[in-house]
Amino acid sequence: MRCAQHQFSAAERDTVYANIALRRDIRHFAPGGQVDDAQLQRMLNAAHQAPSVGLMQPWRFMRIRQPALRRQIQALVEAERQRTAAALDARAAEFLRLKVEGLGDCAELLLVSLAPEDGTVFGRRSMPREMALCSAACAVQNLWLAARAENLGLGWVSMFEPEALAALLQLPQGAMPLGLLCLGPVARFYERPMLEQQGWRDARPLAEMLMDEPSLELS
Amino acid sequence: MRCAQHQFSAAERDTVYANIALRRDIRHFAPGGQVDDAQLQRMLNAAHQAPSVGLMQPWRFMRIRQPALRRQIQALVEAERQRTAAALDARAAEFLRLKVEGLGDCAELLLVSLAPEDGTVFGRRSMPREMALCSAACAVQNLWLAARAENLGLGWVSMFEPEALAALLQLPQGAMPLGLLCLGPVARFYERPMLEQQGWRDARPLAEMLMDEPSLELS
Repeated sequence: MRCAQHQFSAAERDTVYANIALRRDIRHFAPGGQVDDAQLQRMLNAAHQAPSVGLMQPWRFMRIRQPALRRQIQALVEAERQRTAAALDARAAEFLRLKVEGLGDCAELLLVSLAPEDGTVFGRRSMPREMALCSAACAVQNLWLAARAENLGLGWVSMFEPEALAALLQLPQGAMPLGLLCLGPVARFYERPMLEQQGWRDARPLAEMLMDEPSLELS
Repeated sequence: MRCAQHQFSAAERDTVYANIALRRDIRHFAPGGQVDDAQLQRMLNAAHQAPSVGLMQPWRFMRIRQPALRRQIQALVEAERQRTAAALDARAAEFLRLKVEGLGDCAELLLVSLAPEDGTVFGRRSMPREMALCSAACAVQNLWLAARAENLGLGWVSMFEPEALAALLQLPQGAMPLGLLCLGPVARFYERPMLEQQGWRDARPLAEMLMDEPSLELS
């Protein structure tokens, strides 16, 4: 176990960067795959080491083990897939040909949910909902990177009606499901994001994400 | 450069886990520190490799270079710190003794902002705002982990009125500032989250974050 003052070497730094660069949103899983309990525990520990505003830790996880429950979830996702197609209008047919989730073949299915509002004020007086959501997402990103480090694929499925999924999974009042996390061994990782590989949308370069600061010079 | 099919070794996996475990939200920076342009470029590249719903990439970054602009930002944060203290009521004095941000001494100050709504439907028809926020947060978490791998500290400051900060930084209509990211060398990394070390709040164990799935057995 490295201590808090550990200095990462250049080689270790490059491993971290490779992990970040090679993580993919996965929809194709190796059928019949398995995730060890020890792996799952390590990954959830990593998720739980995420930062959170005011230390609120608003992430909640549920492991779906019952095949019949998974099938009910799949039906909710399929209904939302059809509604999404309808909303996409001219691209509906193209959309429906994409594989958008791996619920049928992933080894493990986890739900990540936003906890009910807990009243934390520190760091979120002015942006309460936004900061809770951002904190929960940081936990998922940790889980995602952990999965890639375990050579496992993870896909975040957000195609569902949150109220319907919350009802099906009997979430507490005020909780909001954010993602169905499909996890498991894969035959291969995508070379590029799948939506790019399939020609759905091109990623834009970093340069387009950078804004100039306003100049304070007197005009 | 590792290829997409790279299998992480156990040692590499443990490096990733150490990076995740040793990342801290930093408010104490080494005065007079600097961040190399090459480091900053690597970190922003890592942020930009984050997943995003429908490949919308809603993260935007601004590097604040002008000391006078940083001071104006500090004034906004200080005003929100006072409002937070007032909202905390019985714990106001205790709160005001905490160091809640490192805007005065960090080497670099970045803004992360949510881009204006771009109409992406894929994966967010039913949760448009939530999924944009989660995507932006994943980019920040990548940046945070990258900073730790560079042995630099990063602190996410969310203590500001988003409308006031958006106006000061002349953000485009519909953009929302999510964080002021204080970045730079540190004398040391906290052993535990600073809010825990200072007795503000205790983190809860992972076990409390896990929910049982509802049973489908017939009753």
